[in-house]
Amino acid sequence: MDISNRYCVIMCGGVGSRFWPYSRANAPKQFIDFFGTGRTLLQMSFDRTKDVVPTENVIILTNEQYAPLVKEQLPELKDAQILLEPTRRNTAPCIAWAAYHIKALNPDALIMVAPSDHLVLKEDEFKRCINKGFDFVAENDALLTLGIKPSRPETGYGYIQIGNAVTDSISKVKTFTEKPNVELAKVFLSTGEFFWNSGMFLWSVDSILKAVQECAPDIAVQFDKGVGLYGTSAEMQFIKQNFASCPGISIDFAVMEKSKNVYVECVDFGWDDLGTWGALYDNSPKNHEGNVTENCKAMLFNCNDCVVAAKGDKLIVASHLKDYIIAVADDVVLIVPKSEEQKIKNYVNEVKTAYGDKYL
Amino acid sequence: MDISNRYCVIMCGGVGSRFWPYSRANAPKQFIDFFGTGRTLLQMSFDRTKDVVPTENVIILTNEQYAPLVKEQLPELKDAQILLEPTRRNTAPCIAWAAYHIKALNPDALIMVAPSDHLVLKEDEFKRCINKGFDFVAENDALLTLGIKPSRPETGYGYIQIGNAVTDSISKVKTFTEKPNVELAKVFLSTGEFFWNSGMFLWSVDSILKAVQECAPDIAVQFDKGVGLYGTSAEMQFIKQNFASCPGISIDFAVMEKSKNVYVECVDFGWDDLGTWGALYDNSPKNHEGNVTENCKAMLFNCNDCVVAAKGDKLIVASHLKDYIIAVADDVVLIVPKSEEQKIKNYVNEVKTAYGDKYL
Repeated sequence: MDISNRYCVIMCGGVGSRFWPYSRANAPKQFIDFFGTGRTLLQMSFDRTKDVVPTENVIILTNEQYAPLVKEQLPELKDAQILLEPTRRNTAPCIAWAAYHIKALNPDALIMVAPSDHLVLKEDEFKRCINKGFDFVAENDALLTLGIKPSRPETGYGYIQIGNAVTDSISKVKTFTEKPNVELAKVFLSTGEFFWNSGMFLWSVDSILKAVQECAPDIAVQFDKGVGLYGTSAEMQFIKQNFASCPGISIDFAVMEKSKNVYVECVDFGWDDLGTWGALYDNSPKNHEGNVTENCKAMLFNCNDCVVAAKGDKLIVASHLKDYIIAVADDVVLIVPKSEEQKIKNYVNEVKTAYGDKYL
Repeated sequence: MDISNRYCVIMCGGVGSRFWPYSRANAPKQFIDFFGTGRTLLQMSFDRTKDVVPTENVIILTNEQYAPLVKEQLPELKDAQILLEPTRRNTAPCIAWAAYHIKALNPDALIMVAPSDHLVLKEDEFKRCINKGFDFVAENDALLTLGIKPSRPETGYGYIQIGNAVTDSISKVKTFTEKPNVELAKVFLSTGEFFWNSGMFLWSVDSILKAVQECAPDIAVQFDKGVGLYGTSAEMQFIKQNFASCPGISIDFAVMEKSKNVYVECVDFGWDDLGTWGALYDNSPKNHEGNVTENCKAMLFNCNDCVVAAKGDKLIVASHLKDYIIAVADDVVLIVPKSEEQKIKNYVNEVKTAYGDKYL
């Protein structure tokens, strides 16, 4: 199998405030060894690309401020494989830039886009699905998204409804649906037609460029100005001057929900976006009292169903807590019921109001 | 008023494990600025002796390991005012040594013995009572203990029952009673005859030496061997060789409960031994939700009646906790209901078993 035309774009610019203070502005979630395996989520995302994409074709898109972290965690990469966004503009400009950049490197490129902070438990199945998806987009002018077989009526994810089948696992997309309420999520699950939107995509460079130009001309017009500069020493200067002019919009809104040739490959490789403490808890090994301890020493007395995460060699001693999150950084301690975790963002805002960036 | 014969012995060797991890083995409770006033409990204890005892007659008894902390916190003292115990032997040997030492310095000395980690809110009343007590022991061969007028049926303190009155505020002691259960404590409170045992004492050097020799001959025999060495450069060498031979016993058991000439001065100067988080909570200012924040930044959401203490410039964010203690050190976080605080010592033991001295 010739994989030399394959590229992987790993999006690595998120700030991860939902895991504050375990995840901090200066070292968000993707840069943390969440499971104590010795590899961070970014490193695990990179590791998964081996065998399906040549290492020299892996491209990391991240915010300027995280360049040192990316280089430290992925020393295998050359500097040219790290594209630094001068400002945050959501996923559509990020993915568009990557496409223009790759087009200049290899006009026949096939691209896989992947987040840097998701969990994949079944790596062999992941590779099998990615190979299948690459083959599909090599032969079809298609925007292929990976839809995850749902295991529960999750209200934290978007859903994709499948339409007509094209192969045994690939179908046309019928609808994209935003995060449903729990009643609707249960209906989705029961029909068998709805899959979780994973945020992973496969396409040829020509297909995504054409789609951006058709569906998101306000983004395309910014990047079209740089044609001739991508892949050259002038690229970064151009990006610094023009990237901020792009609207901040997701690839789902900007392209996937508008384009006609959108397909979904239905997969089941133990995926989770780890977007919440609840998801982290669900995906982590538990002791006999149902407690999860991420990367720290914890002595829990009469505690049940808690998740404890701490940076460094900290000891957490707690008693009589049920269903709590305990997250500890050097200068911040957060203690909050799991059921209140959606409030953490509010707390972070209040902390910012009171103390500025000191504790973010 | 001539106060030149007055001495104060401040006992400063405790390890304060009940406030772990806010209080640590290397910096126990007495060395902490618990109330954020800029003065530690030891410094406040020292400050209170001003006006009633000459500064050069204040003697600190502490464990060898705390010598640097004492010198740092009380730079007013000469090295000769700090007596270093080579090992821990409870209060009786500590107080006996101080008596032998002071006898060599001034055979007419009057001595006040005070813990280093208690709270006194009404300093003027404290000084008035101490002056009165000094006058009493100057004129009587008496061991005078300070009994605190109880404000609640506290089960964490020992009680002193008063006997026949000698002056308006000084009586013979009828009985010493260990920590009572709550029913008995309520009875104690209702009779008006019982006062909290504060651990503060006043006596002449001759009275205490005579009492030690009569009531605790096993201690006296050790220190008698050093007569002639106290107050000389040979004293410390003698102590290093002999102090450990003393039994580890409290002054209450060894002397006060046995001696015939024991008196109590009934006082009411806003005393608390701060021996528990509950006591600390009771003695600290509370916000409108009943939360106490010692020396740290805390943002508490839907929390009530909690006490939060952290070292350094830490931020504690908590939600939905009622009646909890949150104590944070650099490498340890403790979260425990106030009602379970007597278990903290057990937790510390488990921590020691698991990790040795690292987190103590």
